[in-house]
Amino acid sequence: MLEQSLAALSLATVNGDNAIPTKTLVFKPKTAKTATPIPVIVFALQSTSTPSGIIAKSVNVKEPRLAKDDLTMEFFNKSTKEFSIADLNKDSAGKIKFIIDSQILKSDDVLELSTESSKAALPAKTIVEFLKSIDIELVEVDFSAEPTPAPPAEKSKKDLLKEEKQAAKLEDAKLIGITVDKAKDFSSWYAQVVTKGEMLDYYDVSGCYILRPNSYAVWETIQDWFNIRIKKLGVKNSYFPMFVSSRVLEKEKDHIEGFAPEVAWVTKAGSSDLEEPIAIRPTSETVMYPYYSKWIRSHRDLPLKLNQWNSVVRWEFKHPQPFLRTREFLWQEGHTAHLTREGATTEVEQILDLYAGIYEELLAVPVVKGKKTENEKFAGGDYTTTCEGFIAATGRGIQGATSHHLGTNFSKMFDISVENPEGSDKPRVFAFQNSWGLSTRVIGVMVMIHSDNKGLVLPPRVAQNQVVVIPVGITAKTTPEEEKSINDGAADIESRLLAADVRAISDFRENYSPGWKFSDWELKGVPLRIEFGPKDLKSGQATVVRRDNGAKAVVALSELETKIPELLETMQKDLLENARKDFDNHRVVVEEWKDFVPTLNAKNVIVAPWCGDGDCEDDIKDSSAKKDNGEDEEVDEKAPSMGAKSLCIPFDQPTLKPDQKCIKCDKKAVNYCMFGRSY
Amino acid sequence: MLEQSLAALSLATVNGDNAIPTKTLVFKPKTAKTATPIPVIVFALQSTSTPSGIIAKSVNVKEPRLAKDDLTMEFFNKSTKEFSIADLNKDSAGKIKFIIDSQILKSDDVLELSTESSKAALPAKTIVEFLKSIDIELVEVDFSAEPTPAPPAEKSKKDLLKEEKQAAKLEDAKLIGITVDKAKDFSSWYAQVVTKGEMLDYYDVSGCYILRPNSYAVWETIQDWFNIRIKKLGVKNSYFPMFVSSRVLEKEKDHIEGFAPEVAWVTKAGSSDLEEPIAIRPTSETVMYPYYSKWIRSHRDLPLKLNQWNSVVRWEFKHPQPFLRTREFLWQEGHTAHLTREGATTEVEQILDLYAGIYEELLAVPVVKGKKTENEKFAGGDYTTTCEGFIAATGRGIQGATSHHLGTNFSKMFDISVENPEGSDKPRVFAFQNSWGLSTRVIGVMVMIHSDNKGLVLPPRVAQNQVVVIPVGITAKTTPEEEKSINDGAADIESRLLAADVRAISDFRENYSPGWKFSDWELKGVPLRIEFGPKDLKSGQATVVRRDNGAKAVVALSELETKIPELLETMQKDLLENARKDFDNHRVVVEEWKDFVPTLNAKNVIVAPWCGDGDCEDDIKDSSAKKDNGEDEEVDEKAPSMGAKSLCIPFDQPTLKPDQKCIKCDKKAVNYCMFGRSY
Repeated sequence: MLEQSLAALSLATVNGDNAIPTKTLVFKPKTAKTATPIPVIVFALQSTSTPSGIIAKSVNVKEPRLAKDDLTMEFFNKSTKEFSIADLNKDSAGKIKFIIDSQILKSDDVLELSTESSKAALPAKTIVEFLKSIDIELVEVDFSAEPTPAPPAEKSKKDLLKEEKQAAKLEDAKLIGITVDKAKDFSSWYAQVVTKGEMLDYYDVSGCYILRPNSYAVWETIQDWFNIRIKKLGVKNSYFPMFVSSRVLEKEKDHIEGFAPEVAWVTKAGSSDLEEPIAIRPTSETVMYPYYSKWIRSHRDLPLKLNQWNSVVRWEFKHPQPFLRTREFLWQEGHTAHLTREGATTEVEQILDLYAGIYEELLAVPVVKGKKTENEKFAGGDYTTTCEGFIAATGRGIQGATSHHLGTNFSKMFDISVENPEGSDKPRVFAFQNSWGLSTRVIGVMVMIHSDNKGLVLPPRVAQNQVVVIPVGITAKTTPEEEKSINDGAADIESRLLAADVRAISDFRENYSPGWKFSDWELKGVPLRIEFGPKDLKSGQATVVRRDNGAKAVVALSELETKIPELLETMQKDLLENARKDFDNHRVVVEEWKDFVPTLNAKNVIVAPWCGDGDCEDDIKDSSAKKDNGEDEEVDEKAPSMGAKSLCIPFDQPTLKPDQKCIKCDKKAVNYCMFGRSY
Repeated sequence: MLEQSLAALSLATVNGDNAIPTKTLVFKPKTAKTATPIPVIVFALQSTSTPSGIIAKSVNVKEPRLAKDDLTMEFFNKSTKEFSIADLNKDSAGKIKFIIDSQILKSDDVLELSTESSKAALPAKTIVEFLKSIDIELVEVDFSAEPTPAPPAEKSKKDLLKEEKQAAKLEDAKLIGITVDKAKDFSSWYAQVVTKGEMLDYYDVSGCYILRPNSYAVWETIQDWFNIRIKKLGVKNSYFPMFVSSRVLEKEKDHIEGFAPEVAWVTKAGSSDLEEPIAIRPTSETVMYPYYSKWIRSHRDLPLKLNQWNSVVRWEFKHPQPFLRTREFLWQEGHTAHLTREGATTEVEQILDLYAGIYEELLAVPVVKGKKTENEKFAGGDYTTTCEGFIAATGRGIQGATSHHLGTNFSKMFDISVENPEGSDKPRVFAFQNSWGLSTRVIGVMVMIHSDNKGLVLPPRVAQNQVVVIPVGITAKTTPEEEKSINDGAADIESRLLAADVRAISDFRENYSPGWKFSDWELKGVPLRIEFGPKDLKSGQATVVRRDNGAKAVVALSELETKIPELLETMQKDLLENARKDFDNHRVVVEEWKDFVPTLNAKNVIVAPWCGDGDCEDDIKDSSAKKDNGEDEEVDEKAPSMGAKSLCIPFDQPTLKPDQKCIKCDKKAVNYCMFGRSY
């Protein structure tokens, strides 16, 4: 790979027997939450020590730390281990800072460039010429001349981190597989699982990702399931434009305030400047409601229930994360208007139940339904209901989907009103509105919960491929007749399953061993693997292996059409039950503040009596944040060190004791609220 | 309405018995194709003559002509007849030019404002104050002082146009219905049919439209039909980001050249300027192919067949038209890569057949399949195949959908290649690629072909509502028992049809007569109307009326579940057959140039022997354009006066006579080509 890239740049390779080893390190400086990080690349001799203090000073950045795969994936589409200076090109200029060891600039030797999987040898001069040719500003640093910052008395934090990283490495990881441990380095694990599982790929524009068929199929299943059910409720699909004029966008001030810093603006078309900038919708209230006002003329036009499947854009400057925090994302947004409050509030819960259904019935993800606190509700609405999930590996809660009752706040703003059905002498009636949305973040939640160190685990109901059939046991000794019988048998299993509406595929690829294929399909999350070999052929059976727990079963070929769908349903049920156990075991009722933070730190979410006061809620958050302990990893407001937010006031409430006090303050508790660190 | 609007502006109304009538006229000046038109509004006394020459001079525009409904719909969401100065507000400032009759500025009288359906009287001073309050620049013109341009010797063109418009008015048009004749003023008719039929609404951002459930349901039917069939071909759905960095977009120069003037650019997020502008995809070749290059590593990764359903943006400056030419539109784009040319070219035709299937089987629109000429093919591809439709009312062809074979042009540019399966010593194989797309324009084609002066006509297979059940014959004499039986009977018909998978609805709205309801559902295009009244009740029957031809039939209630689906299928078939007759009768084989233009002017498309030369093709277009005859209507390159383009080289060819010459030049004909004016 390395040789290829450099060859493409017309650099000749030379004999590298005596080449001097180098290293290419990527550092991430601490940046404001709203800024895109600028990676600092350090290219030095392997033997040169490159303390971060010197790096910070040389390129004027704060607290540079060794970057993780997600940063290098984002910028260079490579893991840190596979990244080298050969991945830089003219487009890198301006996006990175580059430090070069003065030893290299001075060198007349042949240097060795290496990544985990490849190696190349080149004269130092040639390398430097290449770097200059791509217009990158080279900051020369003589590391040996700089005073080394005093070593800390104890083991340095960096060393500690390195040791942790080392410990997170999986012992038996194969090259194609996941190389880090879910339990030890969750975020690198997640980045690997979604990319190697072919759910998603990193894209050239930061914060945007490609949804590949393995994840888009999950989304299509959700669409079909949800469409059938909302259409029964009388909701109709439609499509509104993605553009909003600035004038209209800014009409509902309270509402837009939350979105304004993240709105993407189109200001040019072709080479002409537009007369006024046009926004890309961050959500469609202001796009749709002026037309609701126009279309709703009489109480006979109510309820009006429209939904759309679309993409919205929120140009977040925070650390992006596949599925969970992306600048463009797919969702559905339903917007309905009702004559009565009851009509509206009934629907809010019907939709929330459907969202819970998507999580539990399709994605095998248990959720807790409840209401958001005033602090956390949708700005401009009356109240927000939510499904909250739980990621056991990190002990953090995650918001699943929300269904809002807007009251008459928007209908008054946009004049969505009708003549009073009781008579024109009575005041006009403003429509009661709801909005509700569920996004592709659901896919991220599903991945985080079920997947493991072998890769993706897909719940059978949403898996693009539910079964993979692999012929096995073919050796040098196998006769051509027997080989044919095994292959034909495997093909026959596939077609019978397809005919029985099981989404089956087979893998007859040559040049790959069955073992390699097993790992490959495990990585991609296929729920069941069917192995078919000489013994199976003889006994009229097939060997079936579950992806989630590796359990093997033998199924008689005569029973394929009944047993395989059964096994798929059993696995679906088990995934949900196991995840539910995790959530139940880690949702802890806490009634005394002294137990709050320790319970939280033990990777739990907490259900606690609470006074309902917003200031107290803020206080709980502040008091449960870990103090800055100088961790080497970059942090943002979603990091594990942050305090516990209110996740929801669960509909399903423990009984409050009489005179129960709030967990934090001295006021009387009004209900139990679920708190936790969250995504 | 008028009074309401003005009341909202806090203007008091006064006694209007002696009010002096005024007029509000909207003119459209001639503008460059790439510019958004600026309407000129003239507000004058009814008695003032306002010649367009004076208007042109006063506000410095070229050839102002009385605007049609589409312009006023776009700017003010009102037809020309319903537009008045009361529709102006602060947002109008800068988007229009405004001329005010000096007689009004001087007046102390009470003036009468009127539209076709409403009227208000206000003091002239108050009106002027209102106009000033909304920040519109008032250009005062003393029409009486200006020399009137010499009247033309004959009847003025404007008068002729007026007479034509008058003649296009439908005699028996009801207020809620279509008010112009499809045969006489096609473009106003089309704007009315799509908006009053609730397919679409005009939107605040010019060139963007809202797809309402009545049209989106058609799109969903198409999606379901197409998805099932492409998945059988091994195509998988996915989603790629809507953003492209300028660097990547501009990579394939030939390809992007055609799109560059129409690309919308995001340059800001929140209040920060982006480091480099980011484009919104006009199509996704450059978005997807870098990843094809990354994912395709070996011949085992081929074919790769991905499709996505998304929206793309082409910021056209030409006259927008609902469904046909919009700045954002929905489509699907399929992009596939194959190991062999045969694999690719076979698929090109498979997809084209599916596109023809969407038109003929779902939309009841006959198409001619063929190949585009070199001039008309997709830039950067090897060849383009197409489905071409025909709008009988205007005699113009319309491109339906295209399926392109790209050869290895893009795979070489993006390095989508694999090791030669015949051995690594053989040259690498570049993938053979296709791309194919079908957009919501199909809905516009369907509407133009089937709909009539009563409104939409929807083919049953794509109609959101296939049947509407309406109780009839309830009069003052009807007993309450009988009324209940009729209503119950109608409700029963609806539920039985729903149970039989017929998309039925019923209309029990009070305060509307059956006749009003008939017109309302005709406007919305529901294929069958079932009337259920006293006689039907007695005889155990229902009366069924077809939307397309008004044919009435009586159906025994016992046979509902079989007869109604039959009738729907018959109507579907008839729509296609009638449209096919129209296309067949107006697709004329012409072999001598002297017959070409007359045949074209008689609203035909032409199949003519042709030499295959691009210059000759241009010559045919130029020679068949109407010379500028000073028509009063604005024209653009798609106008009926334009020349005949090549539409396609039909796959189904008449036999060429030996030594047949080209229709236009002296060269030998190589095949028959279909030419026509087109959309």
